[in-house]
This record gives sequence, C-alpha cells and structure tokens, in this order.
Amino acid sequence: MSGKRSKGNMLIAQSGGPSMVINQSLTGAVLEAKKHDAVGKIYGSLHGIKGILEENLINLRRETNAALEAVARTPSSALGTVRKKPTSDDCRRIFEVLRGYGVRYFFYIGGNDSAETAHIINEEAGRADYELRCFHIPKTIDNDLRENDHTPGFGSAAKFVACALMGDNLDNRALPGVKIDVIMGRHAGFLTAASALARIYPDDGPHLIYLPERAFSLTRFARDVKAVYKRYGRCLVAVSEGVADGKGVPIASKFIKEVDAHGNVQLSGSGALGDMLAAQIKSRTGISRVRADTFGYLQRSFPCLVSDVDAREARQAGAAAVRTAVTKNIDGSIAIRRRRGRNYSVYFEPVPLRKVARDTREMPAKFINREGNDVTQAFIDYARPIVGPLPRIGRLKGAPASRT
Amino acid sequence: MSGKRSKGNMLIAQSGGPSMVINQSLTGAVLEAKKHDAVGKIYGSLHGIKGILEENLINLRRETNAALEAVARTPSSALGTVRKKPTSDDCRRIFEVLRGYGVRYFFYIGGNDSAETAHIINEEAGRADYELRCFHIPKTIDNDLRENDHTPGFGSAAKFVACALMGDNLDNRALPGVKIDVIMGRHAGFLTAASALARIYPDDGPHLIYLPERAFSLTRFARDVKAVYKRYGRCLVAVSEGVADGKGVPIASKFIKEVDAHGNVQLSGSGALGDMLAAQIKSRTGISRVRADTFGYLQRSFPCLVSDVDAREARQAGAAAVRTAVTKNIDGSIAIRRRRGRNYSVYFEPVPLRKVARDTREMPAKFINREGNDVTQAFIDYARPIVGPLPRIGRLKGAPASRT
Repeated sequence: MSGKRSKGNMLIAQSGGPSMVINQSLTGAVLEAKKHDAVGKIYGSLHGIKGILEENLINLRRETNAALEAVARTPSSALGTVRKKPTSDDCRRIFEVLRGYGVRYFFYIGGNDSAETAHIINEEAGRADYELRCFHIPKTIDNDLRENDHTPGFGSAAKFVACALMGDNLDNRALPGVKIDVIMGRHAGFLTAASALARIYPDDGPHLIYLPERAFSLTRFARDVKAVYKRYGRCLVAVSEGVADGKGVPIASKFIKEVDAHGNVQLSGSGALGDMLAAQIKSRTGISRVRADTFGYLQRSFPCLVSDVDAREARQAGAAAVRTAVTKNIDGSIAIRRRRGRNYSVYFEPVPLRKVARDTREMPAKFINREGNDVTQAFIDYARPIVGPLPRIGRLKGAPASRT
Repeated sequence: MSGKRSKGNMLIAQSGGPSMVINQSLTGAVLEAKKHDAVGKIYGSLHGIKGILEENLINLRRETNAALEAVARTPSSALGTVRKKPTSDDCRRIFEVLRGYGVRYFFYIGGNDSAETAHIINEEAGRADYELRCFHIPKTIDNDLRENDHTPGFGSAAKFVACALMGDNLDNRALPGVKIDVIMGRHAGFLTAASALARIYPDDGPHLIYLPERAFSLTRFARDVKAVYKRYGRCLVAVSEGVADGKGVPIASKFIKEVDAHGNVQLSGSGALGDMLAAQIKSRTGISRVRADTFGYLQRSFPCLVSDVDAREARQAGAAAVRTAVTKNIDGSIAIRRRRGRNYSVYFEPVPLRKVARDTREMPAKFINREGNDVTQAFIDYARPIVGPLPRIGRLKGAPASRT
C-alpha cells in the first residue's frame, strides 16, 4: 500500500528470537518517531502480535529518553516477543484493535517469519481498505534475510561466537582432545562461520567448520577430525545446529521432535546433537577425550559483548524504517546494503515486504571452501568489519630448555 | 620441608582445569622470581607434571615482560595443563628430571588435585632427601579450596555465569517458558550460586538455584518450577552439574560414565543432565516450552570477561608463593584471606600443603536458604566484591495504553 500522507498513531512490536541489539532498533524507531508531527501516540505491543490480539499495549511516549537509551543497551526484546503466525481470524482481530487505537503506522522488528507476518497483515489491511503503513525492521542473528548484506543482531552474536571459540581454542590447546561446539543457525551457516574469526595463529581452531549449506556425513566428519587430530594432537570443531544430511534432513531432527508455529524444528535448548556427534567421534576414531558444548541461548542475549557496528546499524535501521514510512508514505522493509570499496560503510534502503518475507538466504558458495568443512578468506573479509575488534590473545614464545 | 636458604633454578607448571586468570598467577610468579637472586633459571613445564616426566620444558627467562603481560590477560593455561595423579614411579622420575635441571623451587598452579600432586612430590622429595621448595598456587573456578576465602578463577567464572543469567533472564522474560541452565561445580555450588548476582528486579531469575550441597529430588524440583511458573508465567533455573540425590549419587552420573585419573566423573562437555531435567519438567508439569543450556567450557575460558579483582588477586597469589618460597624458605600453599570490615580487602597467607590438598570444601550452610532451592543474602554479600561490577540492565516502565 502507498498513497497520500497518513497522520495517526504508531505501534511497534518485536518478534522472533531476541538479539543483543533488537532494543537499539526499538529505541531508534521511537526516538525517530518523536521527531515527526505525523506520529501521534506511540504504542508498544507486548509479545509481538499477541499483544495486539490481547490489547496488551503500552504507551511508549511515557518512557524517558534516558530509559529508552538504557533499554537500547540491554539485550533481548524489551517489549517481549512471540513466535506466532497470524491466521485470517487473527488478522481481522488485529485490524479491529489497530482501528480502535487509531494506529496508522505499524513496525514489526524481526526476521523472515516476522516479515511474513507484517506482509500478511499489510495485505489483509489492503483488502480491508484500512490505511496502514506497515514496515518490517530487520533482526536476526542467523543473518539469513534476503536483500540484506547482513542483519542487525548478527554482528554481536558473531562476536560472542568468535570470543567463545577463541577461549575454547585456548582451552583445547591447554587440555588437548576433540571439542565440538554446536552453534545456532537453522538453515544459514553465517553464525557458525563466524567462529573462524577466532583464529590468530596457524594452528588455532576451529580446525573444522560444518555449515547447513553443505551435506553433512558422519563418515566424512570422523575422517576430517582424525586427520586434524593426527596433525595437531587436538581438534576444535564448530558445527551448525542445522547441519543436514544429503537429503536435507537436519541431523538434529533425528533426535528432537518439537516444532514451533512456523513449522521449525526446535534445535536450540538441547544438547542432543552435540552429544551424539561426540559419541560418534569416540566410537569411530577411538580418541578418548571428546567433549561437546551447545552454546544455546547465550549467543543471542549475552550482555556486555555487543559489536559497536551492529548496535549502531540496528539503531539506524529502526530510525530509517520510521522515517521512510512517515516521510515517503510507503510500506516495506529496511535493507542494509554495503558500499563497494576498501573501507566498510553501509546504507539503508527500503525494499518491498515480500522480498524479505518467508524465504531465507544461505551462505553464498564463495564463502565456503571446496571440501565443505571450512570458510574462505572472502567470508572472513566480509564478517570482520561487522563483528569489530576481538580480544588480544598472548602466547608464550616457548623456547625449549635443556639440562644445565 | 624447610631449612637453610636454597639457591637454584625454578620450575613452574599449571594443572587441572583452565581458568580466565591462571596466567595472571603464572606471570605474577615469573615476574616476582626475576627480582630474586636466589632464583637461577626459570623453567616452565608444558602440561603440568607431564612436561617434567617427558622433559618438555621451556625457558621462561626468554619471554619478554610484554609477552608475559599479554599472556596474563589471556584465558586458559598458557603452559598447557593436565589431569594426572603421579604414581610413585612418576615421582622418582620427576626427581630425576628436577635434579638434572638443578630445580630447587617448584610451583604448581591448580586446585585441590594439583595441591595433592604438589604434596605427594614434596613428601617424596623429603624421603629422597632432595631439597625442594614446593609451593601450590591456588586456582579453581569451583571455589572449593579449603583455607581460602575464595580462589583465583572463581570471580571471573562467576562474572560469566552472572552475565549469562542476566541475558538469559531477559530472554526468558521476552519469550516465556521454563529455562534450565546447567552450571559447573562438581561438589561445591559456589559457581551456580553466583547466578543469583544476575537479579536486579524482584521478578528476575534465576528463580530457583540447586546446589550439590543439598539433596536433589525430581519431585521437589518439578513442584518448585510449577509454583514459580504459576506466579510469573515463566521460570529460570540455575542448577549445578554436580547435583546429587539423597545418597550423594550425582544425578548426571546416571547418564554419563567417563571418569578421569582422580576418579571424577566427567560432568561437563555433555548436555545430558540438562536435557534430562528439561524432559522431566515437560512430562511432570505439562508446560510445553522447556529448554536447557549447559554452559560447559565457556565458563572457564571466555576472553574479555574477567573480574578485575580476580585478575589482581591471581597475580598477587603467584607472586606471594614465589616470595614466600624464596625468602622464607618454606613449602606450602598460598591462601587468600578476607579481612573483616565493611570494605572488601584480602591478604595472602602461606598454609601447609596438606591443608588444601585432596579434600575440598562446600558452600557453608549460611549461604543456602532453608528450602535448599536458593542462596541467601549472605552469599550475595560474599560474592559481589569478588565478581565486581555487572552490566546495567534497562527496563521499560510499560505504562498501559488504552483506546483513544
């Protein structure tokens, strides 16, 4: 929908998995909205569209700028979130509520499922002849939204993963064995790939990286681990929770059965995949010390480990969505585009909702090595500016000593 | 052993699980040793006593102070570590090597198992009439060394746990359900207890904390969770990997069978306990969204999340051990004692090796609530200065909105 300039109230909500910077987008949107006379009341819906359906709304004009800034620096979704795909009945109810509150601007911060929800509401609004400017604000640690160079939330989650692997590499070097780290990423391997940023010295792990984009075989996995172990006396592995066999069936789904409203199998919040992979390595290689950690929810809500670039861009994306909806009077999503050139810089561009809704993107082939067990330098170059500086790691020179 | 002042070479090694500040102790000891003429060469043994047995030693005088400082800020054991209890044969071989390298000062950084190793070597040295000043430098994230108010490594690991629970509480609040976090701690609940530092608002989690010091019952656990869930619509649980039933049998040991050289069951590096607890809550309460994360090795080797107090004390403990061994010509361990009074301050005191070796300590009763499912304010007061400042968390006021 687009047309004459609308004047009215605004409603914003957060959806899908929390991230470390999703509240930057919330704060960016609210502070921007305060600048525009076209925006009347500013409502926050608690737990996404669930808050609209249940009329559980708060008045965001009552929040001080200081409170909004403190919330911006706080991880997870301050308004609460939800994983819910609205039915046609839900959409009718949503319009009834939005109408009742005089809402003309609707902003939904989230990933592809959330963009799909915004898209459905927008189309229903069109059919109902209800004038609504509907904008999706990108958020996903998976970095799997189409049209975007990368998405808010990814950089900070990637920083957590890189730091975790840095520490785990040192741990594995100090107390050798095979260590398997299971990292979030249902269909896209970006977050698992970010583990490669942990490497400083040539023998640093992760030595192997397995992504959902390449068929995963236990036989091949065991062979790879054995080869690395033979070379370094240890092996650190980063594996995506979404790794799947040649037919596209997630390895984890053979152990876990729960699905959400969007039909996604629950992969996080369980150590089953890591434990199974560790057991397989033990039995197939005979290596005795094999451990697995599943990073789980720490990756997306850990405080005090934010990428500055990510935080800034999340803020800008929120502000850009409001500015575009109000001043250009259009619907859509805000995409982050990277400028060509040696120095990292981005710009924000409105794109139609249907272009980011539902379907996700995967890692491009140029980011994955030929063997399908590592990333390329092209990926490192892509990810490093988004993640920002990482901790410095010291290492002893280790000059061998001989008897006096 | 004690007696006339020894002059000779020094050897230092790291043992047991890595920590975020164990290299502070290494650097503290080496920099202190450089001040004393009584110390000749400074050897580092790679992977604890394994490096002595295999004559895999490095020359630490060849490391620059800048390199030692960089290593001090780096987590995990820079010299490598080992979990090995020496046999009598090992001890004879250790003396042969130490004699060959002219070693008169032996420093072993580690926990109670490492203190036991140092104690055994020291006693064998006495029997062999080999003059050796043997010092244990405390390190354990478990905080379970006797004689110590707390141990180097605990404060930083506790900071990680507190930050993780802060984030996870926000995640659980945004996307409600039951969340179970499994935290390290074989026999002592200090690290799990540190999760309580994450609380800011009255409804913040962790809502329940289960420690190895109190018998764990699945029936009681499910009842506790149900009550919290009824009250808040969500529940965040911190549970120690070492929780045990009324007979002292670890719950995890019913699922995991691997043991190390000291007879300890492998509890970390597996998600089995968390997954089992989540499955129990699902089946016993009927709550549908139940997740478990096992923090695993991240807790002990995560870079850039160090407690400043912990880092400083680890450095001081290393220096104190060397100073005491060289100037007082005695053996022992360095204990951290807290001064009475309102302001936090500590001092370091030499104690006999046998007093910290082998047996560990548990949480005192005054730190655990009557119901055995939480900590007391006394614990919070004890732990807060060791952990130091935590991230600030912002929350929306959330004034309810009504229709216009």
